[in-house]
Amino acid sequence: MKFVLAPDSFKECMTAQQAASAMVKGLRRIFPAAEIVAIPMADGGEGTVSALTTITQGKIIEHATVDPLGRPITACFGLSADGHTAFVEVAEASGLNRLQHHERDPLRASSYGTGLQILAALDHDITSLVIGLGGSATNDGGYGIAAALGALFYSSSGEEIRLSSSEDLLKIDRIDLSHCDPRLTNIKIVLASDVTNPLTGTRGATRVFGPQKGITPEMLDHLDSALNHYGCCLESASGKTIIDYPGSGAAGGIGATLLALTGAQLQSGIELVMKYADFTHAVIDADYVFTGEGAIDQQTLYGKTPYGIAVATHQANPDIPVIAVAGKVGNDIEELYQHGFTAIFSINPRAQTLEEALKNGPDNLTQTIENIARLLIQRHSYHSI
Amino acid sequence: MKFVLAPDSFKECMTAQQAASAMVKGLRRIFPAAEIVAIPMADGGEGTVSALTTITQGKIIEHATVDPLGRPITACFGLSADGHTAFVEVAEASGLNRLQHHERDPLRASSYGTGLQILAALDHDITSLVIGLGGSATNDGGYGIAAALGALFYSSSGEEIRLSSSEDLLKIDRIDLSHCDPRLTNIKIVLASDVTNPLTGTRGATRVFGPQKGITPEMLDHLDSALNHYGCCLESASGKTIIDYPGSGAAGGIGATLLALTGAQLQSGIELVMKYADFTHAVIDADYVFTGEGAIDQQTLYGKTPYGIAVATHQANPDIPVIAVAGKVGNDIEELYQHGFTAIFSINPRAQTLEEALKNGPDNLTQTIENIARLLIQRHSYHSI
Repeated sequence: MKFVLAPDSFKECMTAQQAASAMVKGLRRIFPAAEIVAIPMADGGEGTVSALTTITQGKIIEHATVDPLGRPITACFGLSADGHTAFVEVAEASGLNRLQHHERDPLRASSYGTGLQILAALDHDITSLVIGLGGSATNDGGYGIAAALGALFYSSSGEEIRLSSSEDLLKIDRIDLSHCDPRLTNIKIVLASDVTNPLTGTRGATRVFGPQKGITPEMLDHLDSALNHYGCCLESASGKTIIDYPGSGAAGGIGATLLALTGAQLQSGIELVMKYADFTHAVIDADYVFTGEGAIDQQTLYGKTPYGIAVATHQANPDIPVIAVAGKVGNDIEELYQHGFTAIFSINPRAQTLEEALKNGPDNLTQTIENIARLLIQRHSYHSI
Repeated sequence: MKFVLAPDSFKECMTAQQAASAMVKGLRRIFPAAEIVAIPMADGGEGTVSALTTITQGKIIEHATVDPLGRPITACFGLSADGHTAFVEVAEASGLNRLQHHERDPLRASSYGTGLQILAALDHDITSLVIGLGGSATNDGGYGIAAALGALFYSSSGEEIRLSSSEDLLKIDRIDLSHCDPRLTNIKIVLASDVTNPLTGTRGATRVFGPQKGITPEMLDHLDSALNHYGCCLESASGKTIIDYPGSGAAGGIGATLLALTGAQLQSGIELVMKYADFTHAVIDADYVFTGEGAIDQQTLYGKTPYGIAVATHQANPDIPVIAVAGKVGNDIEELYQHGFTAIFSINPRAQTLEEALKNGPDNLTQTIENIARLLIQRHSYHSI
C-alpha cells in the first residue's frame, strides 16, 4: 500500500508540515508498514518557503529585516540542499500575520522587508530564486522591494525622493532602475502565485485584495490611481508592459515591481510546489492520495491546493482516489466530486467553538484519518480473503 | 450490495426514524440500486414506541392522558399491525421532555399518565404489552401507575389515601392489589430497559437517576427512604421480591410497581427492538452496517445502542463492517474498535454552536454518509476491475 499525503496548511491551526504529520500518525495506526509519502503543500502564500525547503531537503536561514511597518524583525528564507535555489515568501516579512488587527495600515505598509530578504538570499550565491506572492499586508505596488533592490525615485523637479506611503507613489515622476542589484539579472526568478489579476482597475490589487488589508471604500479610487501612476512609471523605466500583465496585481502589486525589475516569470504556486516535489512521479503508483486545507467548499475549485492535487492526481491516474479533509466543509461541495475528489470529510468531532477546534486540530485530523484508514484497510482485507 | 442502517435517535435533533431517513438519502446518492434495510433503533427510552411500531408496521394511537404534573395532554402509544401487541413508553406521558427545566419537580412528578396509557392500550384487546422504561421525570416508585391501574393505598388508621407526592409514600401502611385491572393478568408484559438498578440504596433509583430529575442532595435520603417504604409495602402486597430485584429501580422505580402488579419480565431494550426487527436475520448477508447516536464515546460501551448493534453484528458475522456516526465523537473511542466498531465519524462539518449543529443535523448526517459511501463504492469498483 502506498499513500501520498499532500495537505496545505490549516490556517491558524496547522502548517502543512504539521498537517502532514498528523495525517501520517493516523495512517500509521492502521497501516504500520505502508509506504507513506508526505508532501506538505503550499500555493505561494504562507508556508511556501517551508514546503519548498522541506521538499528540497534544504535549510532555513534566519536574518534581520523589517516588518510591514518598518519595525526590526528576524525572518527566514529557505535554501535548497544544493545551495543553488533560495525560497522567499512575501508573507514572511511583509505579511498580514505580522500585524495585529488594529495595526493594519494599507497606506504605510511596505514591502521593504521582503526586498531585504531578497538581498539576503542573493548573498548566498544562488542561481535561482523562488518568491511566493501571497498573504501580504501591503498595497504598495512593491515600491518597498524596488527601493531595497536599488531603484531610485525622482520627483518632477528632479530630486530623489523617499517614499513612506502608497500615496507617495503619486509624487514619482521617474524611476531609475540602473542602480538595481546586478545579481538580479544573472539568476532565474520565479514568482509563485495563483493570482492573475492586473495591477489596477476593477480586477486590480487595490479593489480585489485591498479591503482585506484594511483599505476603506473611500480610499479605493485614490490608491488605485496611485498604483496606476506607479505602474506607468515602471513601464517607462523598464520598457515592459506591467499594468495589464496578468499577475502584476499579486501581493498588493509586488508582482508589478518584480516583473519590471527582473526577468521573473509567474507560475502557479501549487504547480510549482508539485513540480519540486515530483508529485506526478510520487502519485503514479499510489493507492490513495490524501489532501486537505482549513476549509473546503465551492471556493476550493478556484485554484486552491486540494483542487490542484485532485486534478493532478486524476491526470496521473484517474483510478487513484483522492480523499480530502478540512476543518470546515461547506454545504456546497457537490461539484467537487466531478473534479477528482472521491470523498470529503470534516475533522470536527463535535459542536464546539472555533477556538477549541483550532486548539485540537492536529488530534482531530489524526483521529479522522485513522477512521478513514480503518474503512480502507477493512475493504482491502475483505477483498483479499 | 446490502446495507443495514440501525441508528438510535440523535437527542434533541433527530428521532431514530429521521436519522435512518437521512442515512438512506446519503447512501442512495451513491448506491441507487442497493438493498437498504432501515431499522430505527431504541433502547426502551424515548423513541421506543416509534421504533417498535415502525418495525411491526403498526399504527400510532392518540388518546388523552396527563403529564408528570397532572396536566391534560394528548399522548400516543403504538399497536402492532396484527393488533395483538401494544407499545407504551414512560417517556411519552411521564417523561422529562414534558417539562420545562424550571418545572422539574421530583416530589410531585407522577407516573399516573403512563398508567392511563396502559389502560388505553388494554382497551385494544391486546395479548401482549411492551412498556419502555426510560426518560421519566418521576421518582414516584410508580405509585401513579399503581393508582391508575386500580391499586388502593391505606393509612395505618385504615383509611384509603390519595397520594400527591413521593413523600406521601411514607403514609402508606398497606397496599391492596385485589382491585387492579384484571386484564393485566391475562397478557404478556415486557419491560424494555437497560437499567438493572435496584429500587433503593446506593445504586437505587433516587441516588443514581434522581439528580438529573431535579432531586437535590438534601432530599436524597428522605426520598430513598420513601421508596424503600413503598417497596416494602409492594413486597407485602405481592409476595414478591421487589426492592432488590434488578431493574426495579428503572424509571424512578416504575419497574418496582410493574413487577409487583403484573407478571412483567424485564428485557434489554436494544435486544428487544433487535428481536422485533429480526436484526440477526437482516444483518447476516449485509455488506455494511451503519449505526449512530447523538454521542459516541467511552460511555457507548455501557450498553448504548451502537454498542448493541456492533456486538450483534459481530456475532452474526465478524466480517461485516460496522460504521458508526455521531454528532459528538469523544476523544476516548480507542476501546470501541475492539468491540466490533470498524470506523467512527462525526457528522459536524465545521466549528459551530450546538444550536447550529442540532438544526443542521439531518443534512450533516446525509452528507457524512454520502462521503463514507463514496469511499466504499470506490473500493468496490476498484476491486471489481
